[in-house]
Amino acid sequence: MKKISSMNRDELLSLKAELQAQYDGFVKAGTKLDISRGKPGNDQLVLSKALLSLPGDASTFVDGVESANYGVLEGLPSARKMFAELLGTKPEQVFIGGSASLALMFDTISKAFTHGLLHSEKPWSQLDKVKFICVVPGYDRHFAICESFGIEMIPVPLLNDGPDMIMINELIKDEAVRGMWCVPKYSNPDGLSYSDKVVKQLAAMKPAAKDFLLMWDNAYCIHEFEGEFVPFLDIISECEKHGNADMVFEFASTSKITYPGAGISCFACSEANMAYMKKIISKQIISYDKLNQLRHLLFFKNHDGIMAHMKKLGNVLKPKFDIVLNSLKEEVEPHEIAKWHTPKGGYFVSLYAMNGTAKRISDLCKSAGLNITPAGATYPYNNDPDDSHLRIAPSFPPLEELSEAMRLLCCCIKLAAVEKMLG
Amino acid sequence: MKKISSMNRDELLSLKAELQAQYDGFVKAGTKLDISRGKPGNDQLVLSKALLSLPGDASTFVDGVESANYGVLEGLPSARKMFAELLGTKPEQVFIGGSASLALMFDTISKAFTHGLLHSEKPWSQLDKVKFICVVPGYDRHFAICESFGIEMIPVPLLNDGPDMIMINELIKDEAVRGMWCVPKYSNPDGLSYSDKVVKQLAAMKPAAKDFLLMWDNAYCIHEFEGEFVPFLDIISECEKHGNADMVFEFASTSKITYPGAGISCFACSEANMAYMKKIISKQIISYDKLNQLRHLLFFKNHDGIMAHMKKLGNVLKPKFDIVLNSLKEEVEPHEIAKWHTPKGGYFVSLYAMNGTAKRISDLCKSAGLNITPAGATYPYNNDPDDSHLRIAPSFPPLEELSEAMRLLCCCIKLAAVEKMLG
Repeated sequence: MKKISSMNRDELLSLKAELQAQYDGFVKAGTKLDISRGKPGNDQLVLSKALLSLPGDASTFVDGVESANYGVLEGLPSARKMFAELLGTKPEQVFIGGSASLALMFDTISKAFTHGLLHSEKPWSQLDKVKFICVVPGYDRHFAICESFGIEMIPVPLLNDGPDMIMINELIKDEAVRGMWCVPKYSNPDGLSYSDKVVKQLAAMKPAAKDFLLMWDNAYCIHEFEGEFVPFLDIISECEKHGNADMVFEFASTSKITYPGAGISCFACSEANMAYMKKIISKQIISYDKLNQLRHLLFFKNHDGIMAHMKKLGNVLKPKFDIVLNSLKEEVEPHEIAKWHTPKGGYFVSLYAMNGTAKRISDLCKSAGLNITPAGATYPYNNDPDDSHLRIAPSFPPLEELSEAMRLLCCCIKLAAVEKMLG
Repeated sequence: MKKISSMNRDELLSLKAELQAQYDGFVKAGTKLDISRGKPGNDQLVLSKALLSLPGDASTFVDGVESANYGVLEGLPSARKMFAELLGTKPEQVFIGGSASLALMFDTISKAFTHGLLHSEKPWSQLDKVKFICVVPGYDRHFAICESFGIEMIPVPLLNDGPDMIMINELIKDEAVRGMWCVPKYSNPDGLSYSDKVVKQLAAMKPAAKDFLLMWDNAYCIHEFEGEFVPFLDIISECEKHGNADMVFEFASTSKITYPGAGISCFACSEANMAYMKKIISKQIISYDKLNQLRHLLFFKNHDGIMAHMKKLGNVLKPKFDIVLNSLKEEVEPHEIAKWHTPKGGYFVSLYAMNGTAKRISDLCKSAGLNITPAGATYPYNNDPDDSHLRIAPSFPPLEELSEAMRLLCCCIKLAAVEKMLG
């Protein structure tokens, strides 16, 4: 087989006809597939089924607290301990929220605007301009929060060992740069993890803004699907070493451990930030759902219980990532028109198609009934300067559907490349 | 027995000694009692025990939605229908939130500050001054939200049939008056319900502020503990009749139906407000905890199931309110030094002690080990101009403890009155 990248015009035209026929077949078949979101599949949900009957007859009185009544704003002590063990931080640095860490992130930024952060001179709503560093490609929902609050986003590329620190150290000299989004482990969507060196550099930043906010979304902290658990540095104590203890808020949840949108979430931060935030949050809520905290504690039993559960989830995810990566390897790799990462954890495969074809690929997919994250969504303002990046989320569809989705996607990747080369 | 109000100095001195001895007895006994918060007792919690094993083996796929996965921002259709039936509004006007309606209230006001409301010219954070009308006595947590956002509070008295509309219609001529807090049924703390006439007057208000926000906290909408369910007007359709459909947000929850802080909550509003708010909330959360919505649907089964459950809860609460009211009747009424309301629903008894004695009473209680809502808490800025009002929350303690608490409270009411009269 000749590769697309070295075909002449006639060969391209002939391949185009062939691919177009294949594509039309998908359209005709009325395909309806979805690889758009990092949404766990039913084969993952079923692994948490025991949680659905909890706490059952177990006592709701735990840690000296009645979990079925009001009280204990920061969450059950055992739940704080559980997340502290996951994140490598201290229980007193952990605040347990509701079912969504996204809500805790939105709320943190919202409070920065309405009340200001611990070291803010005034609430951000009273500033002329607020800018955030956004590592790209990144998580579209982070960027959507920024847009919603009118925060100007500055893209900084993710290199192989973490975000480009040279650019960042330059950008943070601007006092208007107030914060930064990071997904440090199995980053969304590249699946890369920041090296210890880069984590330490981030912790040592000296931003001009005294209330700089490092948003550390550790969504995939224990989400290996291949190989053993990979340890990571505790960002809070790293920041502390450099006098930056109050710079960082870390986030995590069980959304991709038990039930998406029905799990428990947390933020972790310095004790000073905790005291400051609790004062504001105490006006917002009396206490978050402690019964759901209890459910999770009873379900996992202990840290080993969580890690064993993650192994089971990983075993479900691995074959799905294999399908994606094998399809790309077989169908696309020989043509030298795209590249991608090979993650060992997280929820995504980042695909870099031929420059100038990502939008076309995502349109082709959509028209044929395959829902894929829209091209550009992983960049602020939907602006992928190369129009190259696509995010593949393999978790939701059953294996057969995923194979079908990848056949269609690979067809579209090639078709768009051929069209592009034909000009 | 001679009444305190007509005693001479010697009689007062003799009674004071007697009351002081009684009071010292409580102090010596190391009393530890709590009638401070509207917190359901264990005797209420136990009535929802079946919920703790739900959904169990029941399907989590309901209304065509997988409740154990992400999606459906506004909540399960059946849950929206359930609250719509409770509130007399339409399912499409209901948004199901997390475990706390307080959080939905805080968030509504927060969004007014960061994003503005549907008819705001600009976000409230960009206004020089934001003022709210606060019906007094009222709910301290409403006032705490105002204080947290720097909203200036204007107290307006609650009359027997609702807030003073003459004052209100005058105040809303000021464009800086942007909103108002109401607890329309079994108001916290007076236990009075607004008449249909006043509800209609509120719905017909013509505030100068185009984005006036009527915060309608219907926390006790079905919370009768005596007599049959008392119907109430749907505030949303009432507002609609006067071209004010977008003026009101209504709030409710199951915190005092199933589990405090572990139930489900909602807001209800016009379809235009719903569309506006959903656009912002979609950046904050993917979806609230639908499994907990499902739990509640399975537990209640239908509207009759909720109402039957409320009867059971009422039967637990009634004897507690009887203890409070009988104690006051026996111990305090003969002395003509205080008055109070006799509610048939809600969570509180409002006590108006002799002017200038409420703070002293609450200090006396505290020193003797009885935790009572601090005097003044039911007024903005803790400012009860008469220093007369105290809020009694009978729900939490078991019957015996409540009797003991009331003996101590009545002693303190009389002691403070005697002290006051002695000057």
